[in-house]
Amino acid sequence: MRKEDKDQTDYQEMDYMDAWVRHYRSFTAEGQCATYIPALEKADPTQLGICVIGPDGTVIKSGDWEATFTMQSISKVLSFIAACLHRGIPYVLERVDLEPTGDPFNSIIRLEMHKPGKPFNPMINAGAITVSSLLPGESPQKKLESLCILIEKMVGKRPTINEEVFRSEWQTAHRNRALAYYLKETGFLELEVDQALEVYLKQCSIEVNTEDIALIGLILAHDGYHPIRKEQIFPKRVARLTKSLMLTCGMYNASGKFAAFIGLPAKSGVSGGVMTSVPPRVRTEEIPFKDGCGIGIYGPSIDEYGNSVAGVMLLKHIANSWDLSIF
Amino acid sequence: MRKEDKDQTDYQEMDYMDAWVRHYRSFTAEGQCATYIPALEKADPTQLGICVIGPDGTVIKSGDWEATFTMQSISKVLSFIAACLHRGIPYVLERVDLEPTGDPFNSIIRLEMHKPGKPFNPMINAGAITVSSLLPGESPQKKLESLCILIEKMVGKRPTINEEVFRSEWQTAHRNRALAYYLKETGFLELEVDQALEVYLKQCSIEVNTEDIALIGLILAHDGYHPIRKEQIFPKRVARLTKSLMLTCGMYNASGKFAAFIGLPAKSGVSGGVMTSVPPRVRTEEIPFKDGCGIGIYGPSIDEYGNSVAGVMLLKHIANSWDLSIF
Amino acid sequence: MRKEDKDQTDYQEMDYMDAWVRHYRSFTAEGQCATYIPALEKADPTQLGICVIGPDGTVIKSGDWEATFTMQSISKVLSFIAACLHRGIPYVLERVDLEPTGDPFNSIIRLEMHKPGKPFNPMINAGAITVSSLLPGESPQKKLESLCILIEKMVGKRPTINEEVFRSEWQTAHRNRALAYYLKETGFLELEVDQALEVYLKQCSIEVNTEDIALIGLILAHDGYHPIRKEQIFPKRVARLTKSLMLTCGMYNASGKFAAFIGLPAKSGVSGGVMTSVPPRVRTEEIPFKDGCGIGIYGPSIDEYGNSVAGVMLLKHIANSWDLSIF
Amino acid sequence: MRKEDKDQTDYQEMDYMDAWVRHYRSFTAEGQCATYIPALEKADPTQLGICVIGPDGTVIKSGDWEATFTMQSISKVLSFIAACLHRGIPYVLERVDLEPTGDPFNSIIRLEMHKPGKPFNPMINAGAITVSSLLPGESPQKKLESLCILIEKMVGKRPTINEEVFRSEWQTAHRNRALAYYLKETGFLELEVDQALEVYLKQCSIEVNTEDIALIGLILAHDGYHPIRKEQIFPKRVARLTKSLMLTCGMYNASGKFAAFIGLPAKSGVSGGVMTSVPPRVRTEEIPFKDGCGIGIYGPSIDEYGNSVAGVMLLKHIANSWDLSIF
Repeated sequence: MRKEDKDQTDYQEMDYMDAWVRHYRSFTAEGQCATYIPALEKADPTQLGICVIGPDGTVIKSGDWEATFTMQSISKVLSFIAACLHRGIPYVLERVDLEPTGDPFNSIIRLEMHKPGKPFNPMINAGAITVSSLLPGESPQKKLESLCILIEKMVGKRPTINEEVFRSEWQTAHRNRALAYYLKETGFLELEVDQALEVYLKQCSIEVNTEDIALIGLILAHDGYHPIRKEQIFPKRVARLTKSLMLTCGMYNASGKFAAFIGLPAKSGVSGGVMTSVPPRVRTEEIPFKDGCGIGIYGPSIDEYGNSVAGVMLLKHIANSWDLSIF
Repeated sequence: MRKEDKDQTDYQEMDYMDAWVRHYRSFTAEGQCATYIPALEKADPTQLGICVIGPDGTVIKSGDWEATFTMQSISKVLSFIAACLHRGIPYVLERVDLEPTGDPFNSIIRLEMHKPGKPFNPMINAGAITVSSLLPGESPQKKLESLCILIEKMVGKRPTINEEVFRSEWQTAHRNRALAYYLKETGFLELEVDQALEVYLKQCSIEVNTEDIALIGLILAHDGYHPIRKEQIFPKRVARLTKSLMLTCGMYNASGKFAAFIGLPAKSGVSGGVMTSVPPRVRTEEIPFKDGCGIGIYGPSIDEYGNSVAGVMLLKHIANSWDLSIF
Repeated sequence: MRKEDKDQTDYQEMDYMDAWVRHYRSFTAEGQCATYIPALEKADPTQLGICVIGPDGTVIKSGDWEATFTMQSISKVLSFIAACLHRGIPYVLERVDLEPTGDPFNSIIRLEMHKPGKPFNPMINAGAITVSSLLPGESPQKKLESLCILIEKMVGKRPTINEEVFRSEWQTAHRNRALAYYLKETGFLELEVDQALEVYLKQCSIEVNTEDIALIGLILAHDGYHPIRKEQIFPKRVARLTKSLMLTCGMYNASGKFAAFIGLPAKSGVSGGVMTSVPPRVRTEEIPFKDGCGIGIYGPSIDEYGNSVAGVMLLKHIANSWDLSIF
Repeated sequence: MRKEDKDQTDYQEMDYMDAWVRHYRSFTAEGQCATYIPALEKADPTQLGICVIGPDGTVIKSGDWEATFTMQSISKVLSFIAACLHRGIPYVLERVDLEPTGDPFNSIIRLEMHKPGKPFNPMINAGAITVSSLLPGESPQKKLESLCILIEKMVGKRPTINEEVFRSEWQTAHRNRALAYYLKETGFLELEVDQALEVYLKQCSIEVNTEDIALIGLILAHDGYHPIRKEQIFPKRVARLTKSLMLTCGMYNASGKFAAFIGLPAKSGVSGGVMTSVPPRVRTEEIPFKDGCGIGIYGPSIDEYGNSVAGVMLLKHIANSWDLSIF
């Protein structure tokens, strides 16, 4: 565990983070790396890392915080923000609803049962593919460019796309193609299927580490304002909408349980990342990060829902210890 | 609008609340009173009332705040709290999950599709009937008694059950009976069907006014602590769980949109009540009720989702004006 | 094997029927008796019996042909005929459709998915309960009386109701109650739920043996005409409708496979009975029962679909040997 | 109406066929031509034609019997026969079931609800695309060639593919692509999606007239034997299987009603064709075509289920007049 920038952080605090990571790392054995994307299967399932960033620049890092991984579903949050920024919220919400579903992330059933088949939210694949198609620009390249510009503004460096992961996903994306063609038929997908999938699967293949997603979580916590660079990256109303979506739909089919026991807006990906946003909160006790923070976690061993096994346990421990819940 | 107890409330504030209620009352015409329960159909659709209570006892009341109505689905929150109090959270969660569904409140489909048919959450009827059956006591009377005791502790008076509404619901509860028999078959309902329905439909028929539900909302906002009576009514962990459920599932199939645009834990009933809990929040601007509050609204004209048409509009206006969102 | 009434039947034929029954009896081990109705679980799973009756009175009997069993779902055919007789076909078809579903016999999903929730056919429970409620007479007793009169006309003796089986089913009929209350809510069930279930579950508890159902199958084969008593019991158009329903929906979720490989209108029950109707057919070869026949089979060990394991195998063997298919 | 080949047909009979066609033509106004395939929309909705062929070569033709149309879903019958011929029945049935569904022909729901997602029958699109992929040959051309050879053997001329219709379908086949990618993911589709769709959509675009499909219906009626060319085209067991499928699933979601009121194996297409197979039957009265026949009908104005409006009415009239039912 490294302590940076600030002296006031209690050293005992840093020590216990290392202890926590050590403790929860042993639970990585309860899950396994995602197998349906060949490139993800190669990850080291015993890895577990965390980065917490406060608005004053306080940073706590521990374990495999530097490991690089692809965003996967975490990217759904970024493309939703970018689409709202460029198209306006009403335009986006005409094409995707905001309701949680209780269905698997790749389900088609609800599209068929509920005419006219508008995707229920931007965090399930049907909604995320629709949202990716709304990014500005004519070509997939232009659309990805606009997404990368947004990310660069937040994390301070140009993100790279892992081409191997993209190709691996592209070749096995039968279910996503099924969803996209279904959306094409019902008229909710205006872009060509291949183009929409190229954008979607490439955004899933954007590489980050825990520090990057902690920073994005922090900016969301501060309603689109970058407290370190002191710049409003996106409007408060987009940030609020996004955090509500993360809370109700961000952790796949465990979103309700996550909201109940952790109580924070978060988004996970099958690669093992969890991006969490902790808004400032009123507490009478002395607890860390009262002014909010962003938390990035990486642990590629995932549970039956698709969430990092040890990552969620570690986050629950921290949320309870520091009383982070928004409720 | 009446201003009570405290002198420091800005009189302009009280005036604008009256103006808001007047304004949104005109939108009651966009909905209609619930028709599937004969006794509810008799309500005056033009009514709209509100009560806001702060932890220091500040109260703002306007419109038809004194009107009496039956809790209907709002009671699901109370029976969930009571069941958790008496059985413990793990016992309750073995019999009902915490996931939002996107299905209508009275849907059976998911019980059949997802073996073994555990109800997805306590805010849909299948889950609420299960929870009611878990209230302590052998007989329906005893179970209702334990619920009434909890409510009395919070609102300071013994609640009454509207027998006419109960009988009306009892006679037309075919769909709820279908759900209960389904739960009986799958083993999630341990009580006899008729007994479980008696408890459930009687709790739905408990009479309240906006002040009562504002007070309950306030206690939830303060994690189970009654800030006026200065007493912990139920544990913080039960309060947190309950507020997360209200946020993800409390406003029927508009819960996601409500979380996105209002951002508060709330529970509505088809009788037109909306109980909202506003936790304390960190804000730099001078805004009312920074230490949180409870908001009770009544407006029996409901929309397609089952939520008070004008009530939700009024609440959205207040939430935006006072920046009440938890996100 | 006993040969009755007629001399012209080849004795070798009788011998091979005994051999077939002996052979297929060993396959009863591949299934088990229905467990969800306590009274059915007591049956002897090794039993297998058959009765074939031709229009000239030729009868072939073998194995446990004399064993008594309750009709269960086979009764759905009889109540459909009785309802059509007394109400007219159009009246009945306004309340139940004629389409196969592919769903389990006790499914609710389709009632909810397809508004307004008209049961898809009279062979699934939702449709059968609706049909039972349409039998003539005000009380359950009167309705059952009209059904028993029809059966008596066909089999020549007054049927008895097994009260022990009825009580056993009545107490465990949670799923059927769920279906009935659902139908009550959607308006397709006009009778009170308890009354409709009493009729339905009592008709399921009517006792028969293989000779009885063979006779009913024979009368259906001859379009409602009793070739032995030489009397038209019900109109040809009712018989045709009924046989088409048996073919498309009579063997639970194996109806399609049964039609494909056996090709005969048949109805099974979870008690292990299979009632089959073999219409006259044009064949150039010398084969038995060219003028059609009825086949009754009993074998209480049932497969995953609810059909008699050994009974279906035996029937397939006979259908292929005697080229009985209607196609 | 033209009478060919045989003298013994009653001339009055020919006259009434013309009268029937005239009568039912007026009902074409109750439907409309399929709109989802642009090329089909151009058809003349007032057309109605019929051809009946008996095993002795008797032919009755009336109305627009000579009009050319694309087979559309009728081709599902032919590719099923061809796949069974070349792969054997067990191989085909490992990849597609034989159960009717009650779902729309292009539904995905059941594939997702029922793991592992095996298509329920070869008459819905999911099953038909799977079956087309099983035709012998490596390339789409080879697979279509084997299908065309089978058809040529039956109708005596090489069928042509309407390239305009094929291109039109290819460009709008989003839903079929969604189905095919879904099948690809679950492993039931072994061929590449584009290749399977090329075969499937080209077979749908094969041109026929009522005489062609009447002939195929006749051969099916005679269990695969061509009574005019006196040649066994395919085995009896394949014919029986095919006819049972047509009866249980051949007329889209009206298959059950068609079986009940017409009682014949038939397959319709959205282009307005209906291919019917009438097996020989035992009747005491003097009625036409006792030795069976094939009936081809064309009427491009279709009903809500996708079946020729006037065609089904005409067929019902004939089936009742001539007592054609297999039951």
